[in-house]
Amino acid sequence: MEQLKKWDVLSSEYLFKEPWFTVRRETVALPNGNRIPAYYVLEYPEWVNVIAITRDSQFVFVRQYRHALGCTCYELCAGVCEASDPSPMHAAKRELLEETGYGNGVWEKYAELSPNPSTMTNLSHSFIARDVEIVSAPHPEATEDLSVHLLSLEQVRALLETDQIKQSLMAAVLWKYIAHL
Amino acid sequence: MEQLKKWDVLSSEYLFKEPWFTVRRETVALPNGNRIPAYYVLEYPEWVNVIAITRDSQFVFVRQYRHALGCTCYELCAGVCEASDPSPMHAAKRELLEETGYGNGVWEKYAELSPNPSTMTNLSHSFIARDVEIVSAPHPEATEDLSVHLLSLEQVRALLETDQIKQSLMAAVLWKYIAHL
Repeated sequence: MEQLKKWDVLSSEYLFKEPWFTVRRETVALPNGNRIPAYYVLEYPEWVNVIAITRDSQFVFVRQYRHALGCTCYELCAGVCEASDPSPMHAAKRELLEETGYGNGVWEKYAELSPNPSTMTNLSHSFIARDVEIVSAPHPEATEDLSVHLLSLEQVRALLETDQIKQSLMAAVLWKYIAHL
Repeated sequence: MEQLKKWDVLSSEYLFKEPWFTVRRETVALPNGNRIPAYYVLEYPEWVNVIAITRDSQFVFVRQYRHALGCTCYELCAGVCEASDPSPMHAAKRELLEETGYGNGVWEKYAELSPNPSTMTNLSHSFIARDVEIVSAPHPEATEDLSVHLLSLEQVRALLETDQIKQSLMAAVLWKYIAHL
């Protein structure tokens, strides 16, 4: 299937360039001749998340307060690719160990999705890690206020059905996992 | 399961208040005593999308150029709740008609997900519309550069498996649909 013609960028300026907030404002021209005078693009590093499953079929979840929505959510372990991570899989292994203390296991790439292709530049790389095991105590960052929970497949499915796993990047790969069973 | 204690907002200021870009910067205090001096919250209106299926089991998709990722994507019909929409379902019906010309059918709520609970204030409301039919010509907005495509279930599944339906809010509800088959 053909790719549509890219928009022409007539001007582009950075409004913010901070670690968690990098935004540029662009004036763009569409192939149909229309112009958008102020189009905002949010730049982020690549993201990762992981469906981590123990030898006895428990799913490793975290619960974390999320400020913008003002709620405490069940989530997969997730994070960003740091400059020091040689690959997205390395970033996911690092985040799983930091946030939960789980490691080892057999890892495979599972999906590559976009949080929002119209406004955000990054992709989210998802992995499945089977047979993970506790290898250390969790040591989350100071700004992470989270707890670790082991859930059965039935519990995961019940949370999905009732929209209690709200983050779309995580719901997508967990529903994919269930569709594949 | 308990909700974690909310963060205290020590200060909050709007950096931008534009139709497609409303951002506030906050200084917050976490329950563990840590402070985050600059936390960015992106305010958006509620979003909607719809899995629209014709009487002969074809899925109504659009293809649209997405500037931040620089690619042309297969997508569900989607949009934002306008102030004039009495409900998210009304917004989804309006968007489906505008973008594709399809209407009528039997509608039900299907999911309520968050694009990103840590940074974005809004939810995305998903619907399934069965037995939709062409009721008018599409009349997308001037800034929408899209084409309408009818896909079989097998085609939708193949696109999902190969990460060609990249938008996570859409992948989530489509994988949910397939898991429910």
